[in-house]
Amino acid sequence: MNADESQRAANGLLAQQGSRRQFLKTSALTAVAGGALAACTKGSAATNVAAAATAAAPPPPTAAALAEQMDKMHEAGIKAFPAKSAGKGNQLLQSVMQGSVKVFTLTARKIQWETAAGQSVEAWTYNEQVPGPQIRVREGDRVRVILKNELPESTAIHFHGLEVPNNMDGVPFITQPPVKPGESFTYDFVVPNSGSHMYHSHHNSSKQVGLGLLGAFIVEPKSPLPIERADVDEVFILNDGAHGYTFNGKSFPATQPIVAKHGQKVRIRFMNEGMMIHPMHLHGMHMTVIAKDGWPQPAPWKCDTLNIAPGERWDVIVNCTNKGTWAFHCHILPHAESDHGMFGMVTALVVT
Amino acid sequence: MNADESQRAANGLLAQQGSRRQFLKTSALTAVAGGALAACTKGSAATNVAAAATAAAPPPPTAAALAEQMDKMHEAGIKAFPAKSAGKGNQLLQSVMQGSVKVFTLTARKIQWETAAGQSVEAWTYNEQVPGPQIRVREGDRVRVILKNELPESTAIHFHGLEVPNNMDGVPFITQPPVKPGESFTYDFVVPNSGSHMYHSHHNSSKQVGLGLLGAFIVEPKSPLPIERADVDEVFILNDGAHGYTFNGKSFPATQPIVAKHGQKVRIRFMNEGMMIHPMHLHGMHMTVIAKDGWPQPAPWKCDTLNIAPGERWDVIVNCTNKGTWAFHCHILPHAESDHGMFGMVTALVVT
Amino acid sequence: MNADESQRAANGLLAQQGSRRQFLKTSALTAVAGGALAACTKGSAATNVAAAATAAAPPPPTAAALAEQMDKMHEAGIKAFPAKSAGKGNQLLQSVMQGSVKVFTLTARKIQWETAAGQSVEAWTYNEQVPGPQIRVREGDRVRVILKNELPESTAIHFHGLEVPNNMDGVPFITQPPVKPGESFTYDFVVPNSGSHMYHSHHNSSKQVGLGLLGAFIVEPKSPLPIERADVDEVFILNDGAHGYTFNGKSFPATQPIVAKHGQKVRIRFMNEGMMIHPMHLHGMHMTVIAKDGWPQPAPWKCDTLNIAPGERWDVIVNCTNKGTWAFHCHILPHAESDHGMFGMVTALVVT
Repeated sequence: MNADESQRAANGLLAQQGSRRQFLKTSALTAVAGGALAACTKGSAATNVAAAATAAAPPPPTAAALAEQMDKMHEAGIKAFPAKSAGKGNQLLQSVMQGSVKVFTLTARKIQWETAAGQSVEAWTYNEQVPGPQIRVREGDRVRVILKNELPESTAIHFHGLEVPNNMDGVPFITQPPVKPGESFTYDFVVPNSGSHMYHSHHNSSKQVGLGLLGAFIVEPKSPLPIERADVDEVFILNDGAHGYTFNGKSFPATQPIVAKHGQKVRIRFMNEGMMIHPMHLHGMHMTVIAKDGWPQPAPWKCDTLNIAPGERWDVIVNCTNKGTWAFHCHILPHAESDHGMFGMVTALVVT
Repeated sequence: MNADESQRAANGLLAQQGSRRQFLKTSALTAVAGGALAACTKGSAATNVAAAATAAAPPPPTAAALAEQMDKMHEAGIKAFPAKSAGKGNQLLQSVMQGSVKVFTLTARKIQWETAAGQSVEAWTYNEQVPGPQIRVREGDRVRVILKNELPESTAIHFHGLEVPNNMDGVPFITQPPVKPGESFTYDFVVPNSGSHMYHSHHNSSKQVGLGLLGAFIVEPKSPLPIERADVDEVFILNDGAHGYTFNGKSFPATQPIVAKHGQKVRIRFMNEGMMIHPMHLHGMHMTVIAKDGWPQPAPWKCDTLNIAPGERWDVIVNCTNKGTWAFHCHILPHAESDHGMFGMVTALVVT
Repeated sequence: MNADESQRAANGLLAQQGSRRQFLKTSALTAVAGGALAACTKGSAATNVAAAATAAAPPPPTAAALAEQMDKMHEAGIKAFPAKSAGKGNQLLQSVMQGSVKVFTLTARKIQWETAAGQSVEAWTYNEQVPGPQIRVREGDRVRVILKNELPESTAIHFHGLEVPNNMDGVPFITQPPVKPGESFTYDFVVPNSGSHMYHSHHNSSKQVGLGLLGAFIVEPKSPLPIERADVDEVFILNDGAHGYTFNGKSFPATQPIVAKHGQKVRIRFMNEGMMIHPMHLHGMHMTVIAKDGWPQPAPWKCDTLNIAPGERWDVIVNCTNKGTWAFHCHILPHAESDHGMFGMVTALVVT
C-alpha cells in the first residue's frame, strides 16, 4: 500500500460512521449471546457437561481476530470524535456593570457532570460548569466577583496569578474567613497584571479543585505584544483528579478539537489544575512558547512537546502551516491510550 | 460581607489563639464521651439494646456541623503557624581556618527528628540537622570537608553541582572507597564554580538522602551580577522521602516563613532533594528566575509557579511590592492540604 | 585518609575484579548452607528443637558485617560496568538508494531482549533492537520507510517531531488505517525540519512503546549552528516501561559509557520515551542546553541537572574539561540506586 492508496483507505474508513457506543453495544450483545449459550449447558446432566462444553465452547479467537477486535475499538473511539456530552465548561461569563465595575457571579454547587457520553461523575462547580465559566477582563479593570456557596462545605476563591491586595487572595484563615455553606463573599479589586491566570478554591483544595472548582481568568493586556496576536484563542485546562484525565472537563472522544484555517495563528493557553505533569504533544507543527504564568518569555522558543506542571500556565502560538487533522495529546501515553483505544487527554488541531 | 468587613473578620479570627493540638484534644474528649455513652448501653439486656441504642445514639452530625468541624481543623493549623518544633536545619556552619584552608566538619549520625511538633521520625543527619548545616564559601576558596561516619552503614559525600577534581566527587567505587562505619574521610579542593549547590550522600542514596543526609553548599561569586543583589537570602530545600513533604526538614505548620520589608528583594534558592517534582507557587507576587543549578540564566524570566525537579536548583528574586502574609506552597495540592487542613509543603512570605 | 591515599585505595579497589554475579553466587551458596544447617534441625525430636535451634543458629550479623555486605554488592555492580549483554539498540540503519530516495526498512517483531546480563524481557522491536535502529538523514532528503508488521497486533509509525504531510503522520483511523499483522505500509516524505526527533508506534502505544517500538530519527541541518559542532554525538533514549529503567534499552551495569578526550565537545541528544520525568544529572561538568525538540534554543543556558519529560528531546553540549570517570544518572534516586547498589538509569561520562 503506498501513500495515496493509504489516504484513500483512510478516507474510506472515515466514511464508515460507526460510533464507539454502537460498537460496545454490539460487543455486549455478543457477550450476552455467548453467556446464553453457556447458560444452556448448565441444564445438562452432570455426565453430559464435559461433552456439552466441548460442543458449545467457541474456539479461542485467533491472534488476527483479537487484533481486529482491538482495532475496531480504536476506530470506534476516533469515529465518535468529537462526541456529544451533556454540559460545556469554560463558557465566557458575561459581567453586569455596576457603574464602572464589572460584576461576575459565581455560584458553587454540586452537580452531576458528564466527562464523556455516559460517564457521569459528581462535580463541584462554579455555575454548573467544569471548568467554571471563563472570566475575561482587561488589565486595569475594576472587577467584583460574588461567590455564592451552595456546597456542603466552606470554600473560598484564590485568583491564581493575579497580584491582588492581600485581603482578596482567598486563603481562609490567612486572608479571609472561609465562606460557609449558604453564605456569600464578594471579591473586589482592580486587575493588576495581564495574562493567562486561573481562579480556584483554596479551601480543602485537594478535594474541591479535584472535583471541579476552577476556571480560567484571562486578562487582556493594555498593550499586546506583536507576538501574541492570534486568529484563534483557546484555553486548555488540564485536570487529572476525580474526573479522570480531562481537557476542559471532558475526556476523549468528548473533548473538542481546535479548528483553524491554513495560515492562521492559534494561541493556546495551557493551564494545569491537576496533580501531575502533562507534556502536551502537538503533531504536524511546532508551538512557539510566548508566556509563562501570564508573563512574556523574554526569548520565545519552539517545541512540539511542552511539559505543563500543576499550577503552571504556558501560552503558545501555533502557526497553522500544515493542513489536516492532527493528534494533540498528553505524551504520558497511559493518559491518552489503552488497549481499548484513545481516551482521556486527547484532542485534535484541525487545519482546514 | 464586603472586603473591609472580611478583613476585620479575618483579623478577629487571627486573634482567637486556638491551636490545632487543642482542637484535636477537644475532639478526642468528645469522642471519648461518645464512647462512654455507647458503653453504657452494653450493660442493657439484649431485648433492650435496640431501644437503648435509639435513645442513646447522638443524631448524625449535620452538613453544617461537619463543615464547621473541618474549618476548625484548618483554622487550628494556620493559627499554629509558625509552630515550634525541636531542631533546626540548614544552620550556617562555621569553618575553622587551617592556614588559608576553610575546614568544615560533618558528622553523619542517626537521630530522632521532629518534622513538626509531636511528629518524630528517624533521621540520618549531618551534625544532627535536617537539612545538614549550610556550607557557604566564596568562589576560589580552598576548603576541606571532614566527614566522620557514625552511621551503621558506609557513606560518602557528593558535592552536587561543584566541578571538583574526580577523586573528590564522592561516588564509592568510582572515585573513592566508601567511608565505613567509624571511619573518616577528608575532601579537599579549591571551589571551582559559584552558585547554589548541594552536598549529599552518594551511597545507598535513595535511603540515605531520603533520611536526611543532605545540605546546601552555597558559593558566592567573585563578581556578583547586578540582578542577584538581594536584601534577604533564603535556602529552600524540598524533600518528600521518609520524612513526608518538607521544606528545610519541617512540615507545615512547623515550616518557617520568609519575612521581608516592603520594597526589599528576596532571593530564594530552591533545591529539590526528593523523588518528585514540586511546582512552587507564590501568592501575590511573581518570581524572576535568575539562575539554574548555579548558572545564570541568560534571559531571566518571570513566573508565579516554578517546577522544581529532583536534583535541580533554581534561584529566583522576589521584589516585595505587595504587603501581607502570602501563602507559598507546592501546587501539587495533595502535598499541601488535606481535609484536615494545610500540612507538608506550605509556608508563607510575609511582607511587612 | 587524605585525597591521594583515597585515590590509591580506589585504584586498588578497581583492580579487584569481582563481578556482581560472582558475589550473588557466593551469597546464594551461603544462604543454601544456612538452609542446610536449619534443615538438619528438622529431624530432631520436638523436645530438642529449641535447644538445637539455639545451638545451630548463627549469631545475627553485626552492623559492620551488614555494611560490608552491602558495600560488596555496590562494588560488584560498579566493577561489572560496562557489562556485556546480548543485543545492542540504536545502531545506525543503512539506507538503500532508490533513485534519489533513501529507503529504510523497519520490521516490527517480538523477541526476547536482555536489559542486563541475565535479565531477559519480552520486547516488541524494530529490526530486533531496543531502541530501534537509528535513522539519520539530512534536512530535505526524500525518505521512504517501509514498515513490515510481524507482530500479533496492528501497528503504525508516528514520526514524532517531524512536520510531515498529514497522511504520513502515522495515527491509525486519523491519518491512515492500522497496519495489520502480516501487512506492510510505506511512509514516503521529504524530511521537512532538522533536529533530534523520534519514531515510535502510535497504535496501542502505551503497550507498544513501553515494549520497545521506538527509535531515534536524527535530521542533520543544512546549515549547522556553530554551537552544535561536537566531536562526539550521542543519543540517549530514556524509558521506564515494561523493561524497567533503561538508557538505550539497557540497565546499569549493562549501560554504555560515553567516552571523550579531554578538551572535546560531546553532544547528547536526550529523548524520553517513558511515562515519567527523568532529571538527568551529570557529575563534574555542566551541560549547555542548545535545542528543545530539535529547535535551537534562542538563549542557550547551563545546568547540571536537566529534567526530561515524556515525549521531549533536549540537546546539550558538554565541554569535557574535567578528566575522570563521572557518574551520569537520573536524579530520581530510586531510578538509579537501591540498597543492592546502582541499577537502572546510571551510566558514566569518561573523560580521558
